Amino acid sequence: MTTRLPAPLPDSPVYRDVQDAARRIEGYAHRTPVLRSRMLDEALGVETYFKCENFQRTGSFKFRGAFNALSRFTPRQRAAGMVSYSSGNHSQAVARSAQLLGIPATIVMPLDAPASKLAATKGYGGEIVTYDRYEGDPAQIAGALAAERGLTLVPPFDHPDVIAGQGTVTKELLEETGPLDALFVPLGGGGLLAGAALAVGALAPGCELFGVEPEAGDDGRQSLRRGEIVRIEAPRTLADGAQTTEIGAYNFDILRRTVSDIITAPDDALVEGMRDFATYLKLVVEPTGCLGLAALRERAARWRGKRVGVLVSGGNADLERYARLLAG
Amino acid sequence: MTTRLPAPLPDSPVYRDVQDAARRIEGYAHRTPVLRSRMLDEALGVETYFKCENFQRTGSFKFRGAFNALSRFTPRQRAAGMVSYSSGNHSQAVARSAQLLGIPATIVMPLDAPASKLAATKGYGGEIVTYDRYEGDPAQIAGALAAERGLTLVPPFDHPDVIAGQGTVTKELLEETGPLDALFVPLGGGGLLAGAALAVGALAPGCELFGVEPEAGDDGRQSLRRGEIVRIEAPRTLADGAQTTEIGAYNFDILRRTVSDIITAPDDALVEGMRDFATYLKLVVEPTGCLGLAALRERAARWRGKRVGVLVSGGNADLERYARLLAG
Repeated sequence: MTTRLPAPLPDSPVYRDVQDAARRIEGYAHRTPVLRSRMLDEALGVETYFKCENFQRTGSFKFRGAFNALSRFTPRQRAAGMVSYSSGNHSQAVARSAQLLGIPATIVMPLDAPASKLAATKGYGGEIVTYDRYEGDPAQIAGALAAERGLTLVPPFDHPDVIAGQGTVTKELLEETGPLDALFVPLGGGGLLAGAALAVGALAPGCELFGVEPEAGDDGRQSLRRGEIVRIEAPRTLADGAQTTEIGAYNFDILRRTVSDIITAPDDALVEGMRDFATYLKLVVEPTGCLGLAALRERAARWRGKRVGVLVSGGNADLERYARLLAG
Repeated sequence: MTTRLPAPLPDSPVYRDVQDAARRIEGYAHRTPVLRSRMLDEALGVETYFKCENFQRTGSFKFRGAFNALSRFTPRQRAAGMVSYSSGNHSQAVARSAQLLGIPATIVMPLDAPASKLAATKGYGGEIVTYDRYEGDPAQIAGALAAERGLTLVPPFDHPDVIAGQGTVTKELLEETGPLDALFVPLGGGGLLAGAALAVGALAPGCELFGVEPEAGDDGRQSLRRGEIVRIEAPRTLADGAQTTEIGAYNFDILRRTVSDIITAPDDALVEGMRDFATYLKLVVEPTGCLGLAALRERAARWRGKRVGVLVSGGNADLERYARLLAG
């Protein structure tokens, strides 16, 4: 485990950047619905609002940040192309965004990424460069490709434009619900949560904001406690979207100043969450997308009678695996 | 197999009754979302609009017809109470509607109804009278209870107010999408389809209307061909919401004059539909709710480039069974 200090970040995004991102993604990203379940509300004793990014293009919120970042490219950057890396939802999001904007896309993905995600990324016209998960560092490979081929690097979360794009999720939620008492947000690298912090600060300053990590990988909580980014081994968890080893520098720069707390949920609570989403809301949600509900469920007594938002980050569950988990 | 002629039905509902029903259920029933999937559209080559009644109160469209029928009770009928029968979604819908309107509810259900449905119905305050599925006739038992106790009988589909209520599904859909080229509707007793016919006739007269039955129980298709209601043995199919033995008289009176055709889908196509809903739309849909998509999928070439609506009737799948089917 190593630690490093957050750099001073003069170009940290602010709410104005979220507003600009909202204008850029309009007509490309879906304005996803906010859903509720009376029966689940009664079971929890909490008035709960679910922002459903499982309905987003490419199946997760990642499309927002990717599209926002790419749409700011100069004509020269567009022509030269972009490179990114991810084993999960970001690769599909960035490949699709690049396709829509006519930008050549190269994506660095692990050799053993799910076949469905490799196929989806390829289907969006992305060139895939594979690497061995246990040997190579994808960020490094992507960085080398960027230098070599003159491509612009779009990292999956540690980037002002990506954070601003993800902030539109919470902006839309709060515009629809009005101020909430609390908001629970899945936390991996911190893009969704940092974006949420910007929107909460502007639209619902009294709202408590919680990042929720898998119990197996609580680097975010550790980082918040220590006041510096803590790096861990990739955690073993069902929440594959939150298997990050450290929070981004831009992300942490915002989180340390804004979140009420970072909390965790164990894998079995994520499975319970998947079952709740299927039963009460008739929604297919991937394990990472259940982090918020799982954490709220455990703390429902604390929020009794309050109005609470939960960000549902995505729905790209492998169907066989999803069915197996649902069967319990 | 026996047949009987449809009675002449002077009180057959018309579109005006659907409009009245829409006013009555407003604020009680959800105006459910119309969802689309670009990827599924590309796969089918059809511009497809899914009206998602799996998000409706009590998990299916049945709430609309039940609430509409009960809200027309006189004060005397309200005080005396109602009786109905169903092993499925109608019992929950009618129990919940009665609870909201303060009407005592008695529901006749088979002894071996799923525990979850018995519990849900009881949870809404309904008194449950059980019977042996292989011995008793639920309609007869309910009729006897109505006579004995002075209760008003609300049948699950063969009733003008129930049909008018179900018509609000298609009214909402067409108001949102404008005229469509075709509409695919699950068919059991014919409440949803007859209601759809009224709305289509008023709002999209050029739209072709298809009822979709499980292949194992094509009494509707037979009835349409013969021009009279055909009664069959309860079919063995995954589509438990369409295990009816005959179409209702009011329903058939409308259908024979309005539908383009009645078609069928085999059970394995329903499972494919469930998988499509989970993969592309991130929705949990019960097998009966997949009838429309399954039928469209088989005929996609015929509707290439057209705008087609599909009614998704409900999402009350037993979770274990749902997971088993999804795993394939």
